[in-house]
Amino acid sequence: MAEVKVVEKIMGANEQIAAQNRRLLDERGIVTVNLMASPGAGKTSLIMRTIEALRDRLRIGAIEGDTASRVDADRVATAGVPVVQINTGGGCHLDAPMVRYALDRLPLDEIDLLLIENVGNLVCPAGFALGEHVRVLIASVPEGDDKPYKYPGMFSSVDAVVINKTDLLPYLEFDVPAFRQLIAGLNPEARIFEVSCTTGEGVGVWAEWLARMCS
Amino acid sequence: MAEVKVVEKIMGANEQIAAQNRRLLDERGIVTVNLMASPGAGKTSLIMRTIEALRDRLRIGAIEGDTASRVDADRVATAGVPVVQINTGGGCHLDAPMVRYALDRLPLDEIDLLLIENVGNLVCPAGFALGEHVRVLIASVPEGDDKPYKYPGMFSSVDAVVINKTDLLPYLEFDVPAFRQLIAGLNPEARIFEVSCTTGEGVGVWAEWLARMCS
Repeated sequence: MAEVKVVEKIMGANEQIAAQNRRLLDERGIVTVNLMASPGAGKTSLIMRTIEALRDRLRIGAIEGDTASRVDADRVATAGVPVVQINTGGGCHLDAPMVRYALDRLPLDEIDLLLIENVGNLVCPAGFALGEHVRVLIASVPEGDDKPYKYPGMFSSVDAVVINKTDLLPYLEFDVPAFRQLIAGLNPEARIFEVSCTTGEGVGVWAEWLARMCS
Repeated sequence: MAEVKVVEKIMGANEQIAAQNRRLLDERGIVTVNLMASPGAGKTSLIMRTIEALRDRLRIGAIEGDTASRVDADRVATAGVPVVQINTGGGCHLDAPMVRYALDRLPLDEIDLLLIENVGNLVCPAGFALGEHVRVLIASVPEGDDKPYKYPGMFSSVDAVVINKTDLLPYLEFDVPAFRQLIAGLNPEARIFEVSCTTGEGVGVWAEWLARMCS
């Protein structure tokens, strides 16, 4: 009888550490969101609005990722929540070891909802699990309604898409129904929210969705 | 006497092929521009406006890079210029071999100015030479005026920054002088242009700068 070799899937280093992060977060009961988007789509603004909407009901923490600088963490810190800045040193995405490092520096016993802002990039972050429970893409109206064609990997990998900067719709050619249809074609399960972090419109519906996951 | 080992810099595969591309382009007298930007900053729109502005004086060709789809190439083709679409298959930047492949498919004897649209990404494309003569970053106003802090690698690596979507300035908090100063701090040699591809404002100055390089 011929020898049978069993080859098991060996998890890569990032996936292993992501799984450890996930276990740690589960143990502490911290719902964790990986926020991904192009540069300038409004990741930090959505974090600020979410804190504002939920701070009376949930204890929120944040991890800010950027290739350089601490401007986002400084901004989030003004809301009085614990925040750690990760600088990737030019790297194009966060990875699970970076998040692990940040988790070790956060007061996990005092956090119900952890918002992770990834590096601004519609390509690379899609491929790296961090240990999060929910993956969210923020797509801003000025970027145009053709982005799902060009970044299908990102659009098909997320649990929700937040269409941001809807206050600019009057000044731009952006077809919201067509955009929703494109997303649905790639990712029928994805929840879609429409918000303006400038006016606050639509933030409530998004925040309720997050809050329900924490209850 | 101790042995002295001389270690020469060995060019990586990408740099070698970029140098070959550059020689080929120099031989044909084709000025080549690598256009980099976030998703939706207006790379294709700037290419369309540049063709419109210069088509009577220069023969233009284009290479369109995206992770997926051919929508940009189809759009550029409507202007009647030769264009090749490169799909990176999820890859986050163009590289020199991809451009070499595209060059082999373009009528190089009929091109004076070659516009290469890189994958929408403010991180990875900065690290990969394509053989281009000029590196340009398009920064759109809705992305916010803090981007040089967060993507210093990109802002410091380019010959010019095109500030696009200036028609949206009345609706946004974007401090143009502060943004120019940030760029100048990182990259004092960079030329800075202000344009609106929607209204056409400022496109002439940008196009003249390109045209002078081709003469």
